[in-house]
Amino acid sequence: MKNLNSTALKVSENQLWILDQTQLPKNERWVLCDSLSIMLDVIKSLKVRGAPLIGVAASLFFALHGKQENTAEELIFILDELINSRPTAVNLSFLLNEHKKLLSTKVNMETHIALAERHFFDDCQLCENIASHGSNLLKNKQGIITHCNTGSLATAGVGTALGVIKKLYLNQTKPAIYVDETRPLLQGSRLTAWELMQAQIPYQLICDNMAANLMRQGKIDAVIVGADRICRNGDFANKIGTYGLAVLAHYHNIPFYVAAPMTTVDLHCTSGDSISIEQRDSCEVSFVHSSGERLQIAPLNTLAYNPAFEVTPAHLVTSYIFDTGIFKSSDLNKFNDV
Amino acid sequence: MKNLNSTALKVSENQLWILDQTQLPKNERWVLCDSLSIMLDVIKSLKVRGAPLIGVAASLFFALHGKQENTAEELIFILDELINSRPTAVNLSFLLNEHKKLLSTKVNMETHIALAERHFFDDCQLCENIASHGSNLLKNKQGIITHCNTGSLATAGVGTALGVIKKLYLNQTKPAIYVDETRPLLQGSRLTAWELMQAQIPYQLICDNMAANLMRQGKIDAVIVGADRICRNGDFANKIGTYGLAVLAHYHNIPFYVAAPMTTVDLHCTSGDSISIEQRDSCEVSFVHSSGERLQIAPLNTLAYNPAFEVTPAHLVTSYIFDTGIFKSSDLNKFNDV
Repeated sequence: MKNLNSTALKVSENQLWILDQTQLPKNERWVLCDSLSIMLDVIKSLKVRGAPLIGVAASLFFALHGKQENTAEELIFILDELINSRPTAVNLSFLLNEHKKLLSTKVNMETHIALAERHFFDDCQLCENIASHGSNLLKNKQGIITHCNTGSLATAGVGTALGVIKKLYLNQTKPAIYVDETRPLLQGSRLTAWELMQAQIPYQLICDNMAANLMRQGKIDAVIVGADRICRNGDFANKIGTYGLAVLAHYHNIPFYVAAPMTTVDLHCTSGDSISIEQRDSCEVSFVHSSGERLQIAPLNTLAYNPAFEVTPAHLVTSYIFDTGIFKSSDLNKFNDV
Repeated sequence: MKNLNSTALKVSENQLWILDQTQLPKNERWVLCDSLSIMLDVIKSLKVRGAPLIGVAASLFFALHGKQENTAEELIFILDELINSRPTAVNLSFLLNEHKKLLSTKVNMETHIALAERHFFDDCQLCENIASHGSNLLKNKQGIITHCNTGSLATAGVGTALGVIKKLYLNQTKPAIYVDETRPLLQGSRLTAWELMQAQIPYQLICDNMAANLMRQGKIDAVIVGADRICRNGDFANKIGTYGLAVLAHYHNIPFYVAAPMTTVDLHCTSGDSISIEQRDSCEVSFVHSSGERLQIAPLNTLAYNPAFEVTPAHLVTSYIFDTGIFKSSDLNKFNDV
């Protein structure tokens, strides 16, 4: 396989290395993924995260470690174990099912390697296209808020929403970038802040409850976030905190953008009402986790309300920034007719 | 002096003990305040917090430790040291200036002791009155969000906004209580949650960015917060995160209440525009502090935007719950004519 190099994933001399994101921002530790058990642990323990990045990492792992001497049955077992390691990650099963289809025709592992490499480069290109469309659309924005991490730590490329922001910074006017810390798991302060610091792009960190304050002062011209799933009517699921930001942007007449690959649109999903919301453990709220350590911030046995993500209705979205261009929610309905 | 007993402050056999709130929620440590240097440290290092509680604590300290053998000059020095230990705490200077006035007439320390005891009991009564008016007003509310800590850890009595909630729980229907964690200093998760657990009142902790999610689901019927200062036009200053909550409540047609002693109204302050906002250290955001420990959650040298509090405009407030009754912002203007 070619040597590959991205912020959170490397292939060097046919060995796959993954950056352990649970150790950020304090420690930069790379894990050599040279066995199925290690790869499964890396996915399950959230050392690798971001739906696109998980998919690409698993595809590369399979191509590197599904040896020629394995039977088709053994190879399918490996693929199924990988798919089941994060059942809700749509990209993961999508990319690995492409390997499964190849297995039904008699091919050598070189073909799987070529497919995995294509997955890597396709993801990079997708990000480039989103960043390009988005940076054109937002080129006059002076102050921007983003939420969670949607950058090079979530994709093989520059990212989605954060990719747009990074391209804006590098190519155009340099906007003031405000990073929501994104409680409870702090993907903003731990990951987005780390990524921007690595890229030497200035930012200001804020607690999630400070966004409204900045908006009231007129310091924000745009909010841009990613999406886990976009419904046919434009409703979309994303990290908890997204809906509140969208309401605040609406109240202050600030445009609110969603940046994602077109593959995030799920035409089987008619509206946000059909998305079920996973409740996560109270400990994520009553303890703060960072760099492999944790700190208790509430009495023991505190019950927390802790939805992992939430639905934001289409009417609060100004535009969707896809790899294929800029769309309104009314455009998404038309895809249905295709 | 009488023995006095409140959640965060005790007088026992003429000794003043203060609960070290920086050690909550893990450790319940009481500090014996038997010298001026200890008392000043307790105030400056935020071991005691909440404007009413700081004022009462300092008044009790002065009455217990301003010995008869001190000259009036020495006593005034003690009072000035206490007043300057937290210059922005209006209650602190208000109560200690009452001691200063006494000093201008020849009185013995017994008079100061009686005054300090009155400060303690007045604060308790103020809280009772607010709780009584508030719990009548909110008696049919099923789901309530509160922000920061405005309870027995901030006053000598049951508190202001949290006092209303506790009285509602004890006297009436038992509402679902949602506690904002209140980043960056986590007064909600560290203090309000601890206080409710001590009182055996059930609650759910939420991250600040989850309030909108609960509102959208129709789970919230009221938001109630405290206030640091209320202007003549009804604009008020309070902990960062208050304005965003008010906007979200407005968008979801949920009433938004401010509970405070009438003395919080500053008639010299015509509107929120005249309140200057203190920017605090980035470390409060890039590190999480709890129970005397801290955890790094962002890259070192991260710059954070960190306003300690913020102004919420009067038009977002449904009613003000004072010790003297329930008011609208238009009522506050009338006080000016008195």
